Amino acid sequence: MEEELYSLSHDEIAKRISSMEIRGAAFIARAAAIALKNAAESFHGTDMGEFRSHMSGAADVIGSTRPSAVSLPNAIRYVLGSGEHDTVDEARDYMVERSRRFVENSHMASKRIAEYGGKRLKDGDVLLTHCNSSLAIGAMKYAWGQGKKISVFATESRPKKQGYITVRQLAEHGIPVNLIVDSAVRYFMNQVDHVYIGADSIASNGAVINKIGTSQVALCAHESRVPVTVCAETYKFSRETTFGDLIRIEERDPSEIVEPADFPGVNIRNPVFDATSERYIDAIVTEKGIISPSSAYHIITEMEE
Amino acid sequence: MEEELYSLSHDEIAKRISSMEIRGAAFIARAAAIALKNAAESFHGTDMGEFRSHMSGAADVIGSTRPSAVSLPNAIRYVLGSGEHDTVDEARDYMVERSRRFVENSHMASKRIAEYGGKRLKDGDVLLTHCNSSLAIGAMKYAWGQGKKISVFATESRPKKQGYITVRQLAEHGIPVNLIVDSAVRYFMNQVDHVYIGADSIASNGAVINKIGTSQVALCAHESRVPVTVCAETYKFSRETTFGDLIRIEERDPSEIVEPADFPGVNIRNPVFDATSERYIDAIVTEKGIISPSSAYHIITEMEE
Amino acid sequence: MEEELYSLSHDEIAKRISSMEIRGAAFIARAAAIALKNAAESFHGTDMGEFRSHMSGAADVIGSTRPSAVSLPNAIRYVLGSGEHDTVDEARDYMVERSRRFVENSHMASKRIAEYGGKRLKDGDVLLTHCNSSLAIGAMKYAWGQGKKISVFATESRPKKQGYITVRQLAEHGIPVNLIVDSAVRYFMNQVDHVYIGADSIASNGAVINKIGTSQVALCAHESRVPVTVCAETYKFSRETTFGDLIRIEERDPSEIVEPADFPGVNIRNPVFDATSERYIDAIVTEKGIISPSSAYHIITEMEE
Amino acid sequence: MEEELYSLSHDEIAKRISSMEIRGAAFIARAAAIALKNAAESFHGTDMGEFRSHMSGAADVIGSTRPSAVSLPNAIRYVLGSGEHDTVDEARDYMVERSRRFVENSHMASKRIAEYGGKRLKDGDVLLTHCNSSLAIGAMKYAWGQGKKISVFATESRPKKQGYITVRQLAEHGIPVNLIVDSAVRYFMNQVDHVYIGADSIASNGAVINKIGTSQVALCAHESRVPVTVCAETYKFSRETTFGDLIRIEERDPSEIVEPADFPGVNIRNPVFDATSERYIDAIVTEKGIISPSSAYHIITEMEE
Amino acid sequence: MEEELYSLSHDEIAKRISSMEIRGAAFIARAAAIALKNAAESFHGTDMGEFRSHMSGAADVIGSTRPSAVSLPNAIRYVLGSGEHDTVDEARDYMVERSRRFVENSHMASKRIAEYGGKRLKDGDVLLTHCNSSLAIGAMKYAWGQGKKISVFATESRPKKQGYITVRQLAEHGIPVNLIVDSAVRYFMNQVDHVYIGADSIASNGAVINKIGTSQVALCAHESRVPVTVCAETYKFSRETTFGDLIRIEERDPSEIVEPADFPGVNIRNPVFDATSERYIDAIVTEKGIISPSSAYHIITEMEE
Amino acid sequence: MEEELYSLSHDEIAKRISSMEIRGAAFIARAAAIALKNAAESFHGTDMGEFRSHMSGAADVIGSTRPSAVSLPNAIRYVLGSGEHDTVDEARDYMVERSRRFVENSHMASKRIAEYGGKRLKDGDVLLTHCNSSLAIGAMKYAWGQGKKISVFATESRPKKQGYITVRQLAEHGIPVNLIVDSAVRYFMNQVDHVYIGADSIASNGAVINKIGTSQVALCAHESRVPVTVCAETYKFSRETTFGDLIRIEERDPSEIVEPADFPGVNIRNPVFDATSERYIDAIVTEKGIISPSSAYHIITEMEE
Repeated sequence: MEEELYSLSHDEIAKRISSMEIRGAAFIARAAAIALKNAAESFHGTDMGEFRSHMSGAADVIGSTRPSAVSLPNAIRYVLGSGEHDTVDEARDYMVERSRRFVENSHMASKRIAEYGGKRLKDGDVLLTHCNSSLAIGAMKYAWGQGKKISVFATESRPKKQGYITVRQLAEHGIPVNLIVDSAVRYFMNQVDHVYIGADSIASNGAVINKIGTSQVALCAHESRVPVTVCAETYKFSRETTFGDLIRIEERDPSEIVEPADFPGVNIRNPVFDATSERYIDAIVTEKGIISPSSAYHIITEMEE
Repeated sequence: MEEELYSLSHDEIAKRISSMEIRGAAFIARAAAIALKNAAESFHGTDMGEFRSHMSGAADVIGSTRPSAVSLPNAIRYVLGSGEHDTVDEARDYMVERSRRFVENSHMASKRIAEYGGKRLKDGDVLLTHCNSSLAIGAMKYAWGQGKKISVFATESRPKKQGYITVRQLAEHGIPVNLIVDSAVRYFMNQVDHVYIGADSIASNGAVINKIGTSQVALCAHESRVPVTVCAETYKFSRETTFGDLIRIEERDPSEIVEPADFPGVNIRNPVFDATSERYIDAIVTEKGIISPSSAYHIITEMEE
Repeated sequence: MEEELYSLSHDEIAKRISSMEIRGAAFIARAAAIALKNAAESFHGTDMGEFRSHMSGAADVIGSTRPSAVSLPNAIRYVLGSGEHDTVDEARDYMVERSRRFVENSHMASKRIAEYGGKRLKDGDVLLTHCNSSLAIGAMKYAWGQGKKISVFATESRPKKQGYITVRQLAEHGIPVNLIVDSAVRYFMNQVDHVYIGADSIASNGAVINKIGTSQVALCAHESRVPVTVCAETYKFSRETTFGDLIRIEERDPSEIVEPADFPGVNIRNPVFDATSERYIDAIVTEKGIISPSSAYHIITEMEE
Repeated sequence: MEEELYSLSHDEIAKRISSMEIRGAAFIARAAAIALKNAAESFHGTDMGEFRSHMSGAADVIGSTRPSAVSLPNAIRYVLGSGEHDTVDEARDYMVERSRRFVENSHMASKRIAEYGGKRLKDGDVLLTHCNSSLAIGAMKYAWGQGKKISVFATESRPKKQGYITVRQLAEHGIPVNLIVDSAVRYFMNQVDHVYIGADSIASNGAVINKIGTSQVALCAHESRVPVTVCAETYKFSRETTFGDLIRIEERDPSEIVEPADFPGVNIRNPVFDATSERYIDAIVTEKGIISPSSAYHIITEMEE
Repeated sequence: MEEELYSLSHDEIAKRISSMEIRGAAFIARAAAIALKNAAESFHGTDMGEFRSHMSGAADVIGSTRPSAVSLPNAIRYVLGSGEHDTVDEARDYMVERSRRFVENSHMASKRIAEYGGKRLKDGDVLLTHCNSSLAIGAMKYAWGQGKKISVFATESRPKKQGYITVRQLAEHGIPVNLIVDSAVRYFMNQVDHVYIGADSIASNGAVINKIGTSQVALCAHESRVPVTVCAETYKFSRETTFGDLIRIEERDPSEIVEPADFPGVNIRNPVFDATSERYIDAIVTEKGIISPSSAYHIITEMEE
Repeated sequence: MEEELYSLSHDEIAKRISSMEIRGAAFIARAAAIALKNAAESFHGTDMGEFRSHMSGAADVIGSTRPSAVSLPNAIRYVLGSGEHDTVDEARDYMVERSRRFVENSHMASKRIAEYGGKRLKDGDVLLTHCNSSLAIGAMKYAWGQGKKISVFATESRPKKQGYITVRQLAEHGIPVNLIVDSAVRYFMNQVDHVYIGADSIASNGAVINKIGTSQVALCAHESRVPVTVCAETYKFSRETTFGDLIRIEERDPSEIVEPADFPGVNIRNPVFDATSERYIDAIVTEKGIISPSSAYHIITEMEE
């Protein structure tokens, strides 16, 4: 599906992102990079001022599709770069090349995180995961590919039940997997060796923003001395939080939970993410290596260089 | 619905219990008491030996309907009593009277627990509850009746979603109530002043067995210094655990969660209860008064006297 | 000062209690017992109905002097007793005798608590205390009298600075004592072997109500694995909390902290007590023996017998 | 070996206790009961005064053999009883009968604790134990006898290495057992389902005194949410601690650790017990049932009745 | 008041610092920078050796005014710089320029920290602060300026009662503020959303040194899951602690607490700061961005570059 | 002993490492550096290809002697360097010089760590150490040399009892030292001011790998609010863990614990290290300065530059 984006206008890609056809922090970021490339290539003038305003317009359109996705501005910032250019051709080439590298790096990051995360597992390990993280699943598949007989508990992840995708992906790969309701996490935790989860974004003080319920899973793991490993590419680290911006936690449509009309007088609250303190996280697996969550500021600083 | 039980045979009542038509630890206990009364009244001979065997047969039928409900053997033990009787008439009268008292005490216990639990709340308090406990709801209504403007967060309680009953009962009473998914408990916990929940049974060391997810809710409350109050009649305290019996935690039909055929290769685990350590419980409200969970053995000892 | 109460009317004693001339939970309780004795002796008729109404009027006057002192209703309940009497003389004698015994028991309780609490200390122990508890100081003096070279950190206890009384009482007894501000508790805690404090009242689930700041001291002790010992007579255990009543925590006059007129636009909050969870208390020393705070319900049950 | 005590004088039994030929809190208690029986039977006069002084002399000799064993005074108190007797024959018969019952109860208690403790285990459970507790081992054997395939980690228990006895007893019974050094407890704790240990004595606030290292094992268990179960007869509950007496923790001969002469200038410290807070203990299995450690005062109160 | 320093000799400024006329880590640092500027400008020779010795003498005088203020050596190190200079004019110009930049940076840092810290707050947030931190108050004012209706609890901060300054500054700004005694922190903590405090210095392992009582406030916040935010310019990070120097915590004059003569035999202890572990701190807001306290070494390393 | 290595072949040095004649992470690292120097000097040709293959063969031999020692590959990587060389002479000179610098740096690191770690101690401090760390002992000696009257508790450290070496080294230096069994750590912890230990290696997320039992000691320290300081040169930080490699924890010969033949049917488990979470470590003293364990990734990144 990623391939076909190359033939779409940046506006069409932006629409797919905002309609949630394109989902997942990593895919959104790559889609944004591709959209910028397409935008650059679709400009045919030679006036640098016009080009700049064309690109900054495109960036605005793309950047406003999902205001809470941290990977989006990081991707845009990377592709636009900070370089000075003399001609439109030079600038366009630069951005096309940066876009290509961003997409390539993103795929490479997935592979590396699967490898680094997978190597940490041992034969016989029992994992627990929440929601549907392709990076966490990648690490499990890597370990399985090394011949390690792991097994997995996966939560439903109400309200959208992304856990159903997770259990199907693991079962298709042959990895033994148990589906449980979100409330059964603590019940099974004493049988678990590792919690492996993804992240939507990571704040500069190391807090991890992820699917609602993640912080509860991490708390239960902490209570049972089960290490929590977060898998996340470095472009999920939020530079904005360094300067005091809060990662907005949106509340989505109540009808994701129940049909409100069936519950007169009942207020339905549907926050989509929560924040997990660095205290409950043992390691973050990034494509640059495995770090303590407290090193988030270090990663963000490096990104800026 | 309780009224009509008086015109049913003990076998018919037993059937309704095992088919889960009759639900909730308190209602099950009263139904058992009524069934024994009906059994006693249906015996027409004068031979004490026959009466004893008739009653013990009835007790077996009733007692085996729900092997994990602690209130059931407690009700049976109470109605049968320990007294010696000379004639069948004497014995029958004794048991009919004990049955009447058990049912009366059970209703009185509900009222007292609502009162004691309700008085502990303050105007403006925000509560959180899990599953559907008539005692916890009773306490909320009592406080509301005292003019205290409380409000409530209630979880869905997957897989059976008893939370839907809870939010409807509260909304009908006019109490402001928010419905949330089970995973959102920690997200909202810092806004909560009290967790109020029920119990299926309480072990002799103070551990509380209740709907799956309760221990997670209690852990989140503990982490945020929110007191956890359990509402439970004394006949939910398990004498059997005093002698090493474990409270069996059954795993119910996977299809309560998803249709297994839709998930080939996926193992579905559906435990129905979990155990919450006394460490995470601040008080148990019983009809005898408000106690520390560590006083469970004291309550069980008193019951035996 | 206690002696002179015997020559005062119960109304005069009541006034002294409500004006805080008579202070401290134990002294208030004894004063109430003496007031009831005086009330009984001041009645000169023979009509039992009149006597009952005379005494219940006296009990009301005395009981309403300090609505939040748990020892007060316990003392009144003890003196009035539950016995049936045939004549006024019989009833009066009964109450006079009960009053005498309450006062005697109260003094005996102080002595026993000093002894039991003092024996637990070792030569060289460093203690920390908060506010001014005559029972805690009694235990320290007992240990000192046994030749144990203890020393003490005592907090100021803002706003009323009762800590100044404490350090003077200890210094006069020759016990080495350090005065510190309330904020310095955690700074010195790692040098401390035992926290010894008093209690205003104890709830049925084991929570201890005492001078504002106590819960903070106990939290700091818990963090440093320093055991917290509470010294309290059994009549400080609150029977009312068994039935859901909350121990009211009054906010006193802001001018105890600063002159409000000097701080325009500033709201001054002056709560006088706080509640310490049983989780942070290792033992309560009562005249009946040393117990876990979780045994509070046990003590209250015994009192009723 | 217990049998032969019946033919020894009470002085000889006392010697065997103080020489540590007779070891273990339960065996010491039974030996004391037998010694008192023998003392009573060896008295041949008829003067009650002489009998009383004979018996109190014997009690002193026996009671002073092991000043820190709580079971010893409890046994003596039980056998001497509180009854008044008219003749020496009556008194002697009374004490002989009390001795018989104490010994019988002690054996019965071991059996019951094994049963109650064993029933709590499940097929496949992994246990960890410290030192050598016949009660804890009894519970393991009971579970094994029920066909539950348990396995055990047992510590060396330096300095006396009682763990070697434990692993031999379990291995002889066919129960799979792993020997580890005391420092490896935390390393293996995440594989453990239950810690089962004995107790030397239990204080009135629920603290458990047991072999040095126990509190460390319990702390590690607590950190990993592994429940800690203590097996102890009720006569190990210390009535003296109710009144402020501390359970003395003796430091034994340094040569149990190393030959001091080989370590000039090195101070060798060899405390033999430590105290585990009730916070880290989930249940105490007694012959009267399974309780929360906070119910210790309840048990002690019942003993006195 | 800062303005007038430019017309004072460096000796006069040093006196004002040591007499505590100039207070607060940031103001002290700027005063030191100005003093060095004045010292440089007051030198009129051309001999580099003399100039160096003149400046190093000035640095000694200024640096020894407050041996425990970490911002002082950081300011001096910054102004003196590491550059080599050929002539006195060059060196003087260099230092004057460095001084100007230090002062400017310091003011800019205050503004940035107010902004970053203020943006993290939400409408309706309740804050708690301890002592008097202009940075923390700056963040509150920034949030208030954004239209966020925050309110604040402020402690007295015995013994010097800097909290009185804090409540006045907030009240004058129109921000609702409650004054409480230091002992009431835990009582109100469950109503608090954020603790915002300043810092005197920060050690290389992330420990925060601040006014006595800070560590207690942070512990109470941690217990209630209330995040703790520290506001501090990077020049408060202590390079010296990297090499093992401890931040000296001075004990000030006992008479700040009470008049010692009024308390014969009482030892008065008056430590002025305490250390808060990084475990209890969620974020440090610096002018370079918001970091985890564990990134302290990172900040110190950058400063050296 | 280090001196004589210069006259041995790299093969002979490798043998001494694998036979554990050469022990301790630092000495192993220096021995490896010396072995590589000797290997380089023993090559007499001029062909760069041959030289490269000679050196890489030597590196393989040396590197495989102790597969779990992190300092070994770090030493080899340092000596071989990354530089390009034109001639064998140039390459040989380069490596000889790098070897010299590694050995010098290693000795310098020990001295610096002793200094930085020693300065953090205060007069009268009581320390506890586990196993035998020359760096931790170095810090103690440094403090002692500064005239600080410290004293030390040292564990036996079963099974190899390296604690005996520790107590002898301290006693010979005149530092008061107590030898205790490993199980007595928690018993004495409340008397301890600092835990000072070494490390075998440190993972990129800050976890410390050290002698079995270390994590238990750190847990006990954490429970009593006693800070834990780890002394470790930067070459003990494991770059490999950054990429997901786990630090292998070997299980050594059971006969280090007991003679297996004496324990038929008993499984003997002898893990030699354990991992301590960064949560329980307050500071790591390196030759580059004192850091939070969370800065491990920072240190590893710097090493690579």
